[in-house]
Amino acid sequence: MTETANISSTPPQGLHAHIQGAVVMIGFGSIGRGLLPLLARHVGFDPAKCVVIDPDGSGRALAESFGVTFLQQALTKENFRAVLEPLLQSGDGRGFCINVSVDVSSVDVMRLCYDLDALYIDSSVEPWAGYFHDKNIDIAARTNYAMREAMLAEGRTRNRGGATAISSCGANPGMVSWLLKEALLNLARDLGLRGGDTPAPQTRRGWAQLMQQAGVKGVHIAERDTQRSLRPKPMNVFVNTWSVEGMVAEGLAAAEMGWGTHERWLPPQARRHKTGCMAAIYMLQSGGDTRVRSWCPTPGPQRAFLVPHHESVAIADYYTLGASDRPEYRPTVHYAYRPSNVALLSLDEMFDRGGKLPKKQQVLAEEEILDGADELGVLLYGHAKNAYWYGSQLSIEAARSLAPHQNATGLQVTSGMLAGIVWALENPDAGVVEADDMDFARCLDVQKPYLGKVAGYYTDWHPLKGRGSLAPEMLDRDDPWQFKNVLVRTPA
Amino acid sequence: MTETANISSTPPQGLHAHIQGAVVMIGFGSIGRGLLPLLARHVGFDPAKCVVIDPDGSGRALAESFGVTFLQQALTKENFRAVLEPLLQSGDGRGFCINVSVDVSSVDVMRLCYDLDALYIDSSVEPWAGYFHDKNIDIAARTNYAMREAMLAEGRTRNRGGATAISSCGANPGMVSWLLKEALLNLARDLGLRGGDTPAPQTRRGWAQLMQQAGVKGVHIAERDTQRSLRPKPMNVFVNTWSVEGMVAEGLAAAEMGWGTHERWLPPQARRHKTGCMAAIYMLQSGGDTRVRSWCPTPGPQRAFLVPHHESVAIADYYTLGASDRPEYRPTVHYAYRPSNVALLSLDEMFDRGGKLPKKQQVLAEEEILDGADELGVLLYGHAKNAYWYGSQLSIEAARSLAPHQNATGLQVTSGMLAGIVWALENPDAGVVEADDMDFARCLDVQKPYLGKVAGYYTDWHPLKGRGSLAPEMLDRDDPWQFKNVLVRTPA
Repeated sequence: MTETANISSTPPQGLHAHIQGAVVMIGFGSIGRGLLPLLARHVGFDPAKCVVIDPDGSGRALAESFGVTFLQQALTKENFRAVLEPLLQSGDGRGFCINVSVDVSSVDVMRLCYDLDALYIDSSVEPWAGYFHDKNIDIAARTNYAMREAMLAEGRTRNRGGATAISSCGANPGMVSWLLKEALLNLARDLGLRGGDTPAPQTRRGWAQLMQQAGVKGVHIAERDTQRSLRPKPMNVFVNTWSVEGMVAEGLAAAEMGWGTHERWLPPQARRHKTGCMAAIYMLQSGGDTRVRSWCPTPGPQRAFLVPHHESVAIADYYTLGASDRPEYRPTVHYAYRPSNVALLSLDEMFDRGGKLPKKQQVLAEEEILDGADELGVLLYGHAKNAYWYGSQLSIEAARSLAPHQNATGLQVTSGMLAGIVWALENPDAGVVEADDMDFARCLDVQKPYLGKVAGYYTDWHPLKGRGSLAPEMLDRDDPWQFKNVLVRTPA
Repeated sequence: MTETANISSTPPQGLHAHIQGAVVMIGFGSIGRGLLPLLARHVGFDPAKCVVIDPDGSGRALAESFGVTFLQQALTKENFRAVLEPLLQSGDGRGFCINVSVDVSSVDVMRLCYDLDALYIDSSVEPWAGYFHDKNIDIAARTNYAMREAMLAEGRTRNRGGATAISSCGANPGMVSWLLKEALLNLARDLGLRGGDTPAPQTRRGWAQLMQQAGVKGVHIAERDTQRSLRPKPMNVFVNTWSVEGMVAEGLAAAEMGWGTHERWLPPQARRHKTGCMAAIYMLQSGGDTRVRSWCPTPGPQRAFLVPHHESVAIADYYTLGASDRPEYRPTVHYAYRPSNVALLSLDEMFDRGGKLPKKQQVLAEEEILDGADELGVLLYGHAKNAYWYGSQLSIEAARSLAPHQNATGLQVTSGMLAGIVWALENPDAGVVEADDMDFARCLDVQKPYLGKVAGYYTDWHPLKGRGSLAPEMLDRDDPWQFKNVLVRTPA
């Protein structure tokens, strides 16, 4: 183990920033409910000008306990402007729209905020309801890649340097981009690059060059959720430590990943995109039914899920050198997510039924969790020191002591959003940005008190190590870190 | 639903048979501990002439509470004759050797019993310790097929009509062979075969002809264990509802199945045998890492594990018509086992580590189980009524009320062994036999009071139904019940 942050279990205090205008929070599920107490603690705003909107009324009492207004309302393509415009303009200064919903178009709300000169943040790029599951739309157009391209276009064609609009800024996507920069600096130092005292690059190109120089072939967003439910999973109930809708959407969607320049074998089920940044591929295979070999500090080796995620595309794009369609350097980047045991069983049950979601769903509240931690970090691999995991190891006990109304998974997301909101208030005219574009050091300053143990681990594990298959496998023995060795395949 | 037996939750009483000589039980794990109370209840024997042998001493108090002698001793190839001979000969009449161990050669002990004119029963054909995991031995020689051939050879070359020696007689293998005959008679009646009042065939050939006439393409030994642990699975502990050693051995071993005459596609990883009954194939793929689409009444469709099992070979062999290497008719037969959630998580964790077993292991005692049932039956498919599941649905509550010291999984096994022991005492000179060779009706008479609900269900489910894959799949759309459609494959 290398770096360790100071670990505190005392709730952090103190205001970081102020919102002058109205605050509109769209969505009040597990993330909204965890974020509101953090906002109240660290960001000054007038509760009388704060509205929380959700089609489900179950959070009303909690919202009202903070003195804010609760509006039970579903936003649609037809009504969102009429509902949001007056709310966002109700204050004197710039409003702030915090979008933590599903089924509400991020790009449409982002555009409205630009028109109204309001600040904006979301935790992922979402379309209007029904889009992801519409089989009449090409799979390529339903990827994170496509959603991100639409968001980027908004920044290129409209909001360049207007009111800051932060896209995809929770734990991942979000925090992991900041941790990746810190991890890369640690690795560069340990490799003795630039004399062992590597200053943080000041440009995107500088960061990409540093990653290339460090010899990083790729990055797993490597997560293990060991939080255990007090009660065993009931049959026919999808149980998760965060949004069931979110998990199901990602689990059913096509696997997606940033595709690095070192890769020599493209899976037959992989497809390239025809337009856009060209940094990623997708597969004709559900992310929640696709396993990859990865590693986290507590379990060691694990076969995690190649769930499609925004950051897999964004990070691969950010660290690209050379032309987008013929890059000189690009890392392979993908999520390798081993969810909680109850979520794994829920996914398994869903795929037993051809992907059909059971009617009953449950998000584990912190009081329904016995023990465990969410271990979420970045695994930088393929360099001279093999592999380096750097991330947050946040136990449910620590999460409980740090903030109310959320488990460890939720707190990693909400503290990432808090950091994003603070950064937006400090940089209010940045236009459309992603986590990679923001000041990682400042963001981690705000977020780290909520992350439990933040530590780095070198490991000698690689995907050719300890394989126990009976079948003769098609492997690339010359380079352990080829995706060919990472992807879990069955013989036929 | 069709057939339902009377369900009793009152502990059955009454002696079925007597053992005149010594009783030697090899192994006192979860099965031995559950079987001894059933023996004491239903089979007369002299506890003073009964010895229980196990290398682990933890069952001593329980054994001694039944007045029997406990011998803490590991049996090996070198010492087994010296240990067992005097024990089996200590009574006046024929002794009875009940082998419920692992790591003790069934064939060697069976041969000793023949030499001593003692009766014999086991729940599976086991080799001496280390054989299954010895990578210097060809995979084909480590299959259930190979173990069964060695056992059959003992019957062909030595014990023909000597002291009855029953091989592989628990729940499965064992009970399921008897349920299959009852299911086949139900199906024949419902199909209106032979005028709707089908007498039970009296010969092996007669049974095979009946199955062929019923249009059965194959049989899944279809099981779902919904028993839930009171406590969530700890990391690094393999938890199961029955022997962990047994589950791990089966989970790591090559998948195996009886290979039917209707199959048109042989998986590339499948291998045929060069000698023996030719009824089965094996795969270069661990059974616990191979999924098949199957069905049980409670969950409906499920992706179960193609765990190698004796009965997959034995049943396919028994129902073969024509030459063994060029059969006119043979059903496809395989196990489709969806273990308990904690066992599924344990298997998953083991395969995360390339098949390495964690040091800590736990078999769930009945008091450690919250609720659930073991649903174990036969799914006869491909006929005019599509598919018919017939089996035992034994809840943990029913198991508790029926017999002590075992959960539902254990009771299905021990009551199958009880039935086998009674049959052996009533048919003491049958030589080497398997469950298929025994009187299914008599055996089920003895066993059914312990099986909870025994019922039959027709279903319109088939393996092409409700598939939700993103990938274009290689399917055989002309025949839903081809193994090509049953095997769960990933695109690469």
